[in-house]
Amino acid sequence: MPEHSLIFPAEEYRRRVSALQSEMARGQLDALLLTTPADVFYTTGFLTRFWESPARPWFVVVPAAGDPVAVIPAIGAELMGRCWIRDIRTWNAPDPVDDGVSLLAETLNSLVPASGRIGIPMGLESHLRMPVGDFLRLQDRIAPRRIADGTGAVYRVREIKSEAEIEKIRASCAIADAAFARVPEFAHQGVPLSRVFCDFQVALLQEGADWVSYVAGGAGQGGYGDVISPADERPLQAGDVLMLDTGAVREGYFCDFDRNFAIGRAADDVRRAHASLYAATEAALTNLRPGMLARDLHRILAEALTREGSVVGGGRLGHGLGLTLTEWPSLTPLDTTELREGMVLTLEPGVEIAPGRILVHEENIVLRAGGPELLSRRAPADLPEIME
Amino acid sequence: MPEHSLIFPAEEYRRRVSALQSEMARGQLDALLLTTPADVFYTTGFLTRFWESPARPWFVVVPAAGDPVAVIPAIGAELMGRCWIRDIRTWNAPDPVDDGVSLLAETLNSLVPASGRIGIPMGLESHLRMPVGDFLRLQDRIAPRRIADGTGAVYRVREIKSEAEIEKIRASCAIADAAFARVPEFAHQGVPLSRVFCDFQVALLQEGADWVSYVAGGAGQGGYGDVISPADERPLQAGDVLMLDTGAVREGYFCDFDRNFAIGRAADDVRRAHASLYAATEAALTNLRPGMLARDLHRILAEALTREGSVVGGGRLGHGLGLTLTEWPSLTPLDTTELREGMVLTLEPGVEIAPGRILVHEENIVLRAGGPELLSRRAPADLPEIME
Repeated sequence: MPEHSLIFPAEEYRRRVSALQSEMARGQLDALLLTTPADVFYTTGFLTRFWESPARPWFVVVPAAGDPVAVIPAIGAELMGRCWIRDIRTWNAPDPVDDGVSLLAETLNSLVPASGRIGIPMGLESHLRMPVGDFLRLQDRIAPRRIADGTGAVYRVREIKSEAEIEKIRASCAIADAAFARVPEFAHQGVPLSRVFCDFQVALLQEGADWVSYVAGGAGQGGYGDVISPADERPLQAGDVLMLDTGAVREGYFCDFDRNFAIGRAADDVRRAHASLYAATEAALTNLRPGMLARDLHRILAEALTREGSVVGGGRLGHGLGLTLTEWPSLTPLDTTELREGMVLTLEPGVEIAPGRILVHEENIVLRAGGPELLSRRAPADLPEIME
Repeated sequence: MPEHSLIFPAEEYRRRVSALQSEMARGQLDALLLTTPADVFYTTGFLTRFWESPARPWFVVVPAAGDPVAVIPAIGAELMGRCWIRDIRTWNAPDPVDDGVSLLAETLNSLVPASGRIGIPMGLESHLRMPVGDFLRLQDRIAPRRIADGTGAVYRVREIKSEAEIEKIRASCAIADAAFARVPEFAHQGVPLSRVFCDFQVALLQEGADWVSYVAGGAGQGGYGDVISPADERPLQAGDVLMLDTGAVREGYFCDFDRNFAIGRAADDVRRAHASLYAATEAALTNLRPGMLARDLHRILAEALTREGSVVGGGRLGHGLGLTLTEWPSLTPLDTTELREGMVLTLEPGVEIAPGRILVHEENIVLRAGGPELLSRRAPADLPEIME
């Protein structure tokens, strides 16, 4: 009888669960309790935009051995039933009296010995997607079992992408590549930035995105001030630099990279800034190797920018990528995460051209034994100019 | 000097903060700590898709008196600086050593007396968007100040929409109305459901959505099995019922309603089910009044469906709506939230035509003193048929 499963063959999920269980054993965890869209998708294949509704919590319990157990609202039973896991327990959510707490506590108590430890991701870049009040009630209901830090167990497994995952991210990157290639069709002098954002999202959908979870960008004379604001109604003008950044999603996997365009002829300082970003990215592509730490890659990028005469600007200089728009680690001077073969990362150097004027540049890579392999199509060395 | 503020005039935010402070006083709370996109947007006007990155926590503290304080990653300083609040404290996130905890603790300790209580939303339909580990550290750092339940303070204020908010939701509904009107242009026999989802998202963007946070739906012979799955590649066939549901966003406000279409001639049981959903909605539109409870409105809908000879199916029969795709309360037999003037709700009756075949129908309303006012354009009484 063929196994049901969504997005990937069941084998892919079994490998993931087995890897999680190895890390759990190292961390002396008797179960993992997972609550976020990415962790639930990662272990089960359960993919839905329904997470957009904050109304209901969803739980997956990974025991020390054996398949995961889903403890979920009844409205998800049909879709979870098409995934590979067979033990699916449901309640009618939202329930103001007991919103799954009893069912989850029973499940944990049956899977974990009384002296056991239940890991949850609780470290940097994590959160628990359930009400705090219910979490406190749950702790009482599972005592003497204790909640423990399961961040490392989850991060060390999820951060290494399988070839199947890398192909999904590559496909999302190709969609963004195709949409970026169409930007000169709709981003002209006089077109409001809000219109450009709209047309760019349409292009991403037409090129194959299932949905567009993230579009940001900016436009300003000789650089932009900010990379996270929604679009405004200001029309593009000659002398602007337009930046578009996207996290388009295909089969649950994100890309995350940006592209810059000069509107009309680019000023010399803008061209130099772009060349410096290009060179810094090139330095990372040439020198990054498995075994380096996140902070080492930050240094490669930052030193290359300085060598080019630029002032490092923007935020971190890159990060992990995959099931969410950004994943750990962060390319900062403080992050000591080891960069290993199979990690998918963004390289995202940024420079400050002048106060309030920055330029950022981003590529997506997978780290191979011999160094980085690009997943995004390399940006042109010279800043493209939209002349019409 | 004109005040900066985004989306709404500063007065709107001042009224909200003042209303929160009145509820806080009733609940003996000396501050509110807010962490979610909706709560931060509600109090400050800070609107960005950057929340899609789980990397960084963001905090707004509402003191017992005076303006809110933002404690946020430096990358958001520029955008928050364009909002109405003036006290903005930043750190370089993500920081593996101290990701804002010290800065937040200092802020809370300076605003709240040592014997004070700091409210967070911790009840049904809430979550805390920060790492659990940091939350535990924060509790230590603010002692003897205590964390308390601030759910009611936030929910009782946010659930009553101002006229300015109602206009935003009405605008989002109008965008979805216009996109639904175009469905017969692209949903035909032979077109895969995934293509329909894509074209529907494009239509929403073209009709004025800033972004499309939610599209779901289903298609199946004489009804669909599920309303939360992503689209599959199955082509539409004569005899299918197609349902599309959307949460399109304009200026930070959601709509949330669906529409059904028969592909070819609709079967008699499908037409009867649709008529029954229409009649149940009509019963709610006629009989709902402020002062009823959420469970009373559930009963109105459920009894009307039964009277029509239908079997109630799907999940809850509606919910709140506004800054997120769904807000409390829930139209279930258990929810005793009072429905008050100014609340924006969905009416979402569902019926089971046969096992595995459901039909759902949704409208958006604002509750006025005299009863409901529609925000979505009323669906046609007869199920539309796409004949070509």
